[in-house]
Amino acid sequence: MADKNFTAILLLSCPDRIGLVSRISHFVFERGGNILDLDEHVDRQANVFSVRVAWDMADFSISASELNEAFTPLGKEFHATWKIKFTLEPTKIAIFVSKYDHCLQEILWRRRLGEFQVDIPLIISNHPDLAPLAEYYDVPFHVVPITKESKDAQEQVQLELLRSHDVDTVVLARYMQILSPEFVSRYSGRIINIHHSFLPAFIGGNPYKQAYERGVKIIGATSHFVTDELDEGPIIEQDIVRISHRDSVKDLIRKGRDLERLVLARALHHHVEHRILVNKNKTVIFD
Amino acid sequence: MADKNFTAILLLSCPDRIGLVSRISHFVFERGGNILDLDEHVDRQANVFSVRVAWDMADFSISASELNEAFTPLGKEFHATWKIKFTLEPTKIAIFVSKYDHCLQEILWRRRLGEFQVDIPLIISNHPDLAPLAEYYDVPFHVVPITKESKDAQEQVQLELLRSHDVDTVVLARYMQILSPEFVSRYSGRIINIHHSFLPAFIGGNPYKQAYERGVKIIGATSHFVTDELDEGPIIEQDIVRISHRDSVKDLIRKGRDLERLVLARALHHHVEHRILVNKNKTVIFD
Amino acid sequence: MADKNFTAILLLSCPDRIGLVSRISHFVFERGGNILDLDEHVDRQANVFSVRVAWDMADFSISASELNEAFTPLGKEFHATWKIKFTLEPTKIAIFVSKYDHCLQEILWRRRLGEFQVDIPLIISNHPDLAPLAEYYDVPFHVVPITKESKDAQEQVQLELLRSHDVDTVVLARYMQILSPEFVSRYSGRIINIHHSFLPAFIGGNPYKQAYERGVKIIGATSHFVTDELDEGPIIEQDIVRISHRDSVKDLIRKGRDLERLVLARALHHHVEHRILVNKNKTVIFD
Amino acid sequence: MADKNFTAILLLSCPDRIGLVSRISHFVFERGGNILDLDEHVDRQANVFSVRVAWDMADFSISASELNEAFTPLGKEFHATWKIKFTLEPTKIAIFVSKYDHCLQEILWRRRLGEFQVDIPLIISNHPDLAPLAEYYDVPFHVVPITKESKDAQEQVQLELLRSHDVDTVVLARYMQILSPEFVSRYSGRIINIHHSFLPAFIGGNPYKQAYERGVKIIGATSHFVTDELDEGPIIEQDIVRISHRDSVKDLIRKGRDLERLVLARALHHHVEHRILVNKNKTVIFD
Repeated sequence: MADKNFTAILLLSCPDRIGLVSRISHFVFERGGNILDLDEHVDRQANVFSVRVAWDMADFSISASELNEAFTPLGKEFHATWKIKFTLEPTKIAIFVSKYDHCLQEILWRRRLGEFQVDIPLIISNHPDLAPLAEYYDVPFHVVPITKESKDAQEQVQLELLRSHDVDTVVLARYMQILSPEFVSRYSGRIINIHHSFLPAFIGGNPYKQAYERGVKIIGATSHFVTDELDEGPIIEQDIVRISHRDSVKDLIRKGRDLERLVLARALHHHVEHRILVNKNKTVIFD
Repeated sequence: MADKNFTAILLLSCPDRIGLVSRISHFVFERGGNILDLDEHVDRQANVFSVRVAWDMADFSISASELNEAFTPLGKEFHATWKIKFTLEPTKIAIFVSKYDHCLQEILWRRRLGEFQVDIPLIISNHPDLAPLAEYYDVPFHVVPITKESKDAQEQVQLELLRSHDVDTVVLARYMQILSPEFVSRYSGRIINIHHSFLPAFIGGNPYKQAYERGVKIIGATSHFVTDELDEGPIIEQDIVRISHRDSVKDLIRKGRDLERLVLARALHHHVEHRILVNKNKTVIFD
Repeated sequence: MADKNFTAILLLSCPDRIGLVSRISHFVFERGGNILDLDEHVDRQANVFSVRVAWDMADFSISASELNEAFTPLGKEFHATWKIKFTLEPTKIAIFVSKYDHCLQEILWRRRLGEFQVDIPLIISNHPDLAPLAEYYDVPFHVVPITKESKDAQEQVQLELLRSHDVDTVVLARYMQILSPEFVSRYSGRIINIHHSFLPAFIGGNPYKQAYERGVKIIGATSHFVTDELDEGPIIEQDIVRISHRDSVKDLIRKGRDLERLVLARALHHHVEHRILVNKNKTVIFD
Repeated sequence: MADKNFTAILLLSCPDRIGLVSRISHFVFERGGNILDLDEHVDRQANVFSVRVAWDMADFSISASELNEAFTPLGKEFHATWKIKFTLEPTKIAIFVSKYDHCLQEILWRRRLGEFQVDIPLIISNHPDLAPLAEYYDVPFHVVPITKESKDAQEQVQLELLRSHDVDTVVLARYMQILSPEFVSRYSGRIINIHHSFLPAFIGGNPYKQAYERGVKIIGATSHFVTDELDEGPIIEQDIVRISHRDSVKDLIRKGRDLERLVLARALHHHVEHRILVNKNKTVIFD
């Protein structure tokens, strides 16, 4: 990071008390940082203070590598959970897919356009079908087939791949397998899924069929962090589309496809721009 | 109906077979009716044909009162469920409310504007709070208090009121009581409710609180026909609004209020324009 | 303001420079104020910094009446445009109407529900039609008829009414007259209008007819501050609704009515919660 | 078309009169056709009747090749404009592009998924940039560079390419050149464009910059048939997305990109399913 044209982003949450914004902004100011963006939120019911501060590192008096240590005393005093990220360091993500291409293509295409600040060292799939798409976008594609018997062992293969590529975040882009609790806890708060319903409606399998049978007039898609409880993790983003009696299940799948890829892309965008704080089972999105 | 400037509307569903549109449109044509609007739908999975036909009665060779008898042979031949309505005959509705005014006001205001082809002979409430609003719009307001003990007897009072005013349709405009199966079966397919969630998410009480606690990013409202299963009847209309972490339960209630009144108004609009066909637990909306 | 349970809101914009958030939050902190909400925005193209800070006055060391003077040195140093408002002081608004009731009713109804922190000392209309509605909500209603000849004189009558009631903000709730430049400059930045189109499309008269003739698939409504150029002032809020070839001009008017009242209500909500900053011809909405 | 499992689609418009639906549906019925879908619309202001009828050809008594002749007497009697299409005959489209890939990719991807009933014999571009994308989807890519001097001659090259591939419909997928009146008249009603604004707002160049400068809160995209008047042709489909003061022109471009590709895809979907009738400068969309 010899380049000085980058931005530091602090994401912090702690019990609310007087003076937090003042103390934090003063920390930045006294080291010569110009605050580009500051957004805060107080959850009065839970008495939790959350903040995202972005500042210009151009004239900052200490370097990026010293920043964590410099902020630690404040973090301790506030009993805070916090992290500091830099725009020069793209988030390393691995994408998990099965056979559907729409979510994968959306992410790869947006990265090529420069919409996402991400590195994608690898794609992992339990099927070979999407290898040509990965190749078109020049991303290594690893097939790790899963059977009921091989699942445990193959998950170790996946985890080793993630470790060896220093992956930060796992994106489940319509990956049709459920991850083990061990896997989930290893990447806690860093696994993003797209579920093809308007959660909490239609949890589990075949949500479009469920929606068709219930006769709803609107369908949705939900991107959320993965936890041990199926489709119950903190929701990042949702969107919907109107349907009518004219739409068959096949039409719902077609219309839902457009939702899924846009909702997942927006969720990932929030994540890699460090705009998400998780408090218990809910997210604060600083957008 | 001495006035000849009115429209007849046929709503029909039956097992699908060849020639249905031709036969029905010919029935209208040979009696001098000009079809103003025809919309049909075939549910291929269930093999059910549904149609809505509206025609001008100005030069029709038979009168409105003879029409039912004239159409009966066709209806029988097709093994159809059908009804014929006329735009000169506004639907008689009773509105049930408790203490919230927004849905009631919406309906009364729209009727005054001429948006709804309805007569509202009475409003029934278990609380006196909304009497002034009813008075402002010149609609008789009946207070029928409900306690656990009095519920059965008071429902008989309500039913007698409906009967004596020849009410066709009951609108539950945030009426905070559950109707008995007897009441529901008496007005089967003619009780419209507004539920303050995006069904099937958040069935039952306090849906805004449920939504808040789940951390959804979108809330909704659903208007549906009432059946014996709570919040499980055929859905007529739904809509949604985005929320964020900044919104408290109170904000959800405020934002939801706007949804509820619009969604209920649209559902009622479809109903009184005879645009809804119910097939099992789903609706066909000819809009 | 003997009551100490209220909130102070600072709205400020100035040329961007380092340390603004820190200095302002420190000003609040050193007087014992707990910041409840802080949202800022830097327009890098124009190099303009904008901020909204809300803090609890419960334990603040100086009183509301001393606050303006206390902040003045900072405001001067920053070459800022700023104002400080208190939640205990509802905004005094006058509503101007002609014959359409939907926007007026929306505002009066929301105020009664407690959604708006406003006083409405008077309604002014060029027609008597909406007097009963005003009476139902207990708001004085002044008829000031306007003809081409009387317009100048009658505007003086209106201005005198506003002055005598110490009105802060004028809301044009489908008021069908154009205000003179003198009037506009007297209430500069404090006149809110609702235009029944998606500006800048369909400026001027009969926008629904214009939309119908152009064959658009979506119509809109726009709330904006009034300036001397017709329909060209800073936009506060917009929304849209889908239409189809089935919709006549009358349908557009009906559907648009729902937009108009919601969009105007949201704009007014932003205004009375002091969430709007105007920079040249654009608004910053801190929501 | 030896395969009998296909559908015939009649699109017809004519002056309104009594008996049209009956006569047309009888034409289908007496030849053994089962009507799968019938949707009609009467524009009472213009007295124009429009209809779309789809029927199953499986047991139809005459062949597809005889159908035009068989229907001609009815068409003449009704003074109608009409055409009959078959689902077995995919529409032949040529896609024109410049350097932006999003709209092209959207169409090619959806065709591969089977969403579109189209053949794409060629892509024409004035730049070579998108050749790899065309190659990935196996579609011939022709570079026809345009300069002010060469424009007339190069358009002849384009027209010859279209002719030799028997192209029915031209899709301008962010093609940055204006077509000559000759070109437009050659493919009248069969050139579909995507304009990156909510027409009629922001006609012409740089609509996102125009939107940014006007300070709108919503941006849009519009797909329309091309006529000789720039951005004034019949609108097929529009959609919008909310923006805020936080969005730079670059953000509008990013958010608008998602609109453009979806709106163009939906418009093309309507077109190739033969759901669009054009009456003067407006469309009827049978969806």
